[in-house]
Amino acid sequence: MSKINKIDQSGITTGPFPSSRKVYEGGTIHDIAVPHREIILSNTRTADGQVLENPPVTVYDTSGPYTDPNYTVDLEQGLPKIREQWIVERGDVEQLAQQSSEYGRERLANKELDYLRFDHANRMPLRAKEGRVPTQFYYACMGIITPEMEYVAIRENQKIQDIKEKYRQHRGNCFGANIPQTEVTAEFVRAELAAGRAILPANINHPEVEPMIIGRNFLVKINANIGNSPTTSSITEEVEKAVWAFRWGADTIMDLSTGANIHETREWIVRNSPVPVGTVPLYQALEKVSGDTTKLTWELYRDTLIEQAEQGVDYFTIHAGLLMRHIPATIHRVTGIVSRGGSIMAKWMLQHHQENFLYTHFSEICDILAAYDVGVSLGDGLRPGCMADANDRAQFGELEALGELTEIARSKFVQVIIEGPGHVPMQGIQKNMDLQLEKCGEAPFYTLGPLVTDIAPGYDHITSAIGGAMIAWQGTAMLCYVTPKEHLGLPDKHDVKTGVITYKLAAHAADVAKGFPGAQFRDYAMSKARFEFRWKDQFALALDPETAMQYHDKTLPDEGYKSSHFCSMCGENFCSMRSTMEVRELAKKMSEKSEMFKDAGGELYL
Amino acid sequence: MSKINKIDQSGITTGPFPSSRKVYEGGTIHDIAVPHREIILSNTRTADGQVLENPPVTVYDTSGPYTDPNYTVDLEQGLPKIREQWIVERGDVEQLAQQSSEYGRERLANKELDYLRFDHANRMPLRAKEGRVPTQFYYACMGIITPEMEYVAIRENQKIQDIKEKYRQHRGNCFGANIPQTEVTAEFVRAELAAGRAILPANINHPEVEPMIIGRNFLVKINANIGNSPTTSSITEEVEKAVWAFRWGADTIMDLSTGANIHETREWIVRNSPVPVGTVPLYQALEKVSGDTTKLTWELYRDTLIEQAEQGVDYFTIHAGLLMRHIPATIHRVTGIVSRGGSIMAKWMLQHHQENFLYTHFSEICDILAAYDVGVSLGDGLRPGCMADANDRAQFGELEALGELTEIARSKFVQVIIEGPGHVPMQGIQKNMDLQLEKCGEAPFYTLGPLVTDIAPGYDHITSAIGGAMIAWQGTAMLCYVTPKEHLGLPDKHDVKTGVITYKLAAHAADVAKGFPGAQFRDYAMSKARFEFRWKDQFALALDPETAMQYHDKTLPDEGYKSSHFCSMCGENFCSMRSTMEVRELAKKMSEKSEMFKDAGGELYL
Repeated sequence: MSKINKIDQSGITTGPFPSSRKVYEGGTIHDIAVPHREIILSNTRTADGQVLENPPVTVYDTSGPYTDPNYTVDLEQGLPKIREQWIVERGDVEQLAQQSSEYGRERLANKELDYLRFDHANRMPLRAKEGRVPTQFYYACMGIITPEMEYVAIRENQKIQDIKEKYRQHRGNCFGANIPQTEVTAEFVRAELAAGRAILPANINHPEVEPMIIGRNFLVKINANIGNSPTTSSITEEVEKAVWAFRWGADTIMDLSTGANIHETREWIVRNSPVPVGTVPLYQALEKVSGDTTKLTWELYRDTLIEQAEQGVDYFTIHAGLLMRHIPATIHRVTGIVSRGGSIMAKWMLQHHQENFLYTHFSEICDILAAYDVGVSLGDGLRPGCMADANDRAQFGELEALGELTEIARSKFVQVIIEGPGHVPMQGIQKNMDLQLEKCGEAPFYTLGPLVTDIAPGYDHITSAIGGAMIAWQGTAMLCYVTPKEHLGLPDKHDVKTGVITYKLAAHAADVAKGFPGAQFRDYAMSKARFEFRWKDQFALALDPETAMQYHDKTLPDEGYKSSHFCSMCGENFCSMRSTMEVRELAKKMSEKSEMFKDAGGELYL
Repeated sequence: MSKINKIDQSGITTGPFPSSRKVYEGGTIHDIAVPHREIILSNTRTADGQVLENPPVTVYDTSGPYTDPNYTVDLEQGLPKIREQWIVERGDVEQLAQQSSEYGRERLANKELDYLRFDHANRMPLRAKEGRVPTQFYYACMGIITPEMEYVAIRENQKIQDIKEKYRQHRGNCFGANIPQTEVTAEFVRAELAAGRAILPANINHPEVEPMIIGRNFLVKINANIGNSPTTSSITEEVEKAVWAFRWGADTIMDLSTGANIHETREWIVRNSPVPVGTVPLYQALEKVSGDTTKLTWELYRDTLIEQAEQGVDYFTIHAGLLMRHIPATIHRVTGIVSRGGSIMAKWMLQHHQENFLYTHFSEICDILAAYDVGVSLGDGLRPGCMADANDRAQFGELEALGELTEIARSKFVQVIIEGPGHVPMQGIQKNMDLQLEKCGEAPFYTLGPLVTDIAPGYDHITSAIGGAMIAWQGTAMLCYVTPKEHLGLPDKHDVKTGVITYKLAAHAADVAKGFPGAQFRDYAMSKARFEFRWKDQFALALDPETAMQYHDKTLPDEGYKSSHFCSMCGENFCSMRSTMEVRELAKKMSEKSEMFKDAGGELYL
């Protein structure tokens, strides 16, 4: 079979992380292979010459097969379809003879697009059989533990069962959440899904996805937005950015492209994405009418939903809660409506003198979503865009409407998450979390930050990570990242990485604060490596090994310094960790003479 | 008078910020001139052609005369001695005939050091007259409002009296603090100082300092550490770094130098510093015995205290609360003792089998400090160095001892602040704040972060800004910055800036959350500029105008885009703010037809 290279994959970053290998863990209920990243550590050498082994640290791995050296990346083939059999075996779906979307069919028939079309794009989509509901939410409600559910249970545990080392994990404070005490079981996953407290976004047309879960009682997840502006970036660049985001830890990506060929770009992304892909279908619908909201119709939008659902998009942001009655409350806002989708719909409503069609057709939207198991992320069209507008009547009015819509979606067994702010001063954050839980029946919350001040453009990954860490601790299930370019321009690859790492650390801080089982183990391993001057282990355990090593090497580049008992921050004589080692030696000697050290008991010799 | 150039001042960054000018505000009690930075904004042009003026925004200015275009920088002269007359006029101090420190006299007599000595180093130091106490704390207790106190009151207000614009500021939550309701008065400053809830660090030998205040009921302050490692950097570089830190917003700096010629380096820094300078005298004392703790003595340390006090250092970190009895509790910590001073003292105690001499001599130390009005920052030698060690017996045991020492210092009218952690998971932060307030009689808290996870080396400015923003909100008065190089190496100039800006944003977020009067005005002005696409105003109002503009210009460099109604983030059709403007126009038209918009009342036309 001869192949035309439609995509340049030379820019794709592959291969394992330093000192790491990909391991797969099997299921006990289903035949599954759950990937983890295992970080292999060097030994501890004690002052008296003992060599003690440090067990490997297993961490959550969003990077997909790209970091598996046994896997040969071929973007033109797409990723392995690990879920294909599971989906088919449930017997609830059927393969269609053609795409249901008119636009999808047109694009496929267009010969001029052949040169950029993903080869397997002409595989025919799956859809629910008449009367069947192939959603993870439905299965959960029926008491069925799907392979996807067992998969995420195993994944969330990060092999906690293998941690034999004693380490101190602080008691968490989880604001009344139901964090599992010791480990996540498949039944726990099912129960949380059935309660609507978690979602498992996994479109039946995205068999490549490695299942993951978003919920308050699981590890906090992060989303990275990718996608081009009208004027920039090619398909190759977008796929590169996506793989890059998976590598650094994006749990989901949202393709927010608004430029040319977004149908084809999306196909390449979905076929090569091991993480759920979200979109805002309204953007493409608006593109189809060249940005003219007066021409936007429900029919056009509906076709776009189906088009994207049949491509395999796992969740849609839908701004269905922004209603006519909310608009007046935005008039005196300092920054008005800052959600793109929200501002489009507000304009549409005023131009057409009609209620939001996403609201009026919401039940029908849910029927479509249920047929493919696309989750709905109820967009907060009225999220505040500045401190001044936070927690206002417009914002909380819409939240109330999102609560009503949650009920409708649930009645159709559609998985629901709720989007949240935005810009909120610290003292106003918890009110957002509390109200969201109350109004939306504990559906998972998915926030953008929030930023805790407006005055630091260029650093909004940080202003938002502060609010993000806090609200995640309080119960937000997924954080949408913010990059340093927020408010200023389109992020490049470097910004994507900075945004992802910043949000990983915020999410992790929340996991630790909530007391998620095993969450503090990586911190412990890092700190032990730090205290023992195992520099390479520190780099390997870091969220961003490259940057950590590069910073260290800036002043002490020689290989010898990777085992030296100090760094350039304090120098040799002023290294406190080095001094502490001497303190311990002295204390050990003294303990034979002095009563004072009896305090520490025999453990002194441990 | 011919001059030898001892210092290369070409690397000093001077001149005003974009669209900004330095303004001075006079006092009503004293003849003082308090500097502010005034940011001048462009006009708003409404859709119907009106031109509305945007009043300037006045912000706190730590940059000193370096940003005053009317001031000619001359590092060899040092800064103007604005406090000289105030100090002398109080009649409590006398000029000495020579330096009291033996080491100081030796250095001055050493002809080989002439080439690098600050020219005015042979001015003779001031000291309290017998029986007098020239500390701001003492004056406050006596009911005296000094010029320094009026100065900080005016400074804290940031010309709030000039804000005529109506803007929405959220009600703060200040955790029981006593934040002023409308503005800071000189009497309020005095009362807070007298209560020991704030300090005004201003050594009588640092007349160049622009007074500032550190306390829970004032704006949150940040400190930047500078200083060389044994192997790196010259005097010129250190002064450059200091001026750089003032420029970006450091409220105080700590000179933590441990290399060569630290006596002379410090003199250059103090003479050219408009902000209070802190040190850890123990570092220099240890340098004097070439890093050999066995040779460290109280006498040597005492001489170092006097040497530095007579140079004009404004506050000393003193690790006097780490006692013999605390050491056993550190033995099983994951990272032992991570404070440099703490680990040195622990080693000393064990080597000498003696209680910490900083503790046993604390009363004498306070007598020395009181004679020069040097504040004491009680060091937390046992601050946790990782998640695992947070909030443990060692840490809180020491905190209790710091409480006792606070009482002693106060009885001598020495100004006291308390240092705090370190590494603490989010759910453990508030306990630190609560205990500190309780144990240390509400003395100001001065924390290093805390970092909320250990696993992000290279990003610890962020992990710590999360904890820093939270604890500052809860009542911490000053945050010690952390740079991206933390745990990895010595920060360079770029890292210093990143650390300072990151901490400014965290501190500001806390001011907003506490509800400090006027704190949210800059956020409001920024967001209004953002909504109106006044790009240059956004850059000018940003904590880091350079980076904001650079990020914007990366994709849209042409001058024309500085007034365009979109940026490359969303592009023209998808700019929500642009859409909102259209929404407002539509709403305005509709309000004549529709009942719905009557809701917003006549204000719709504002």
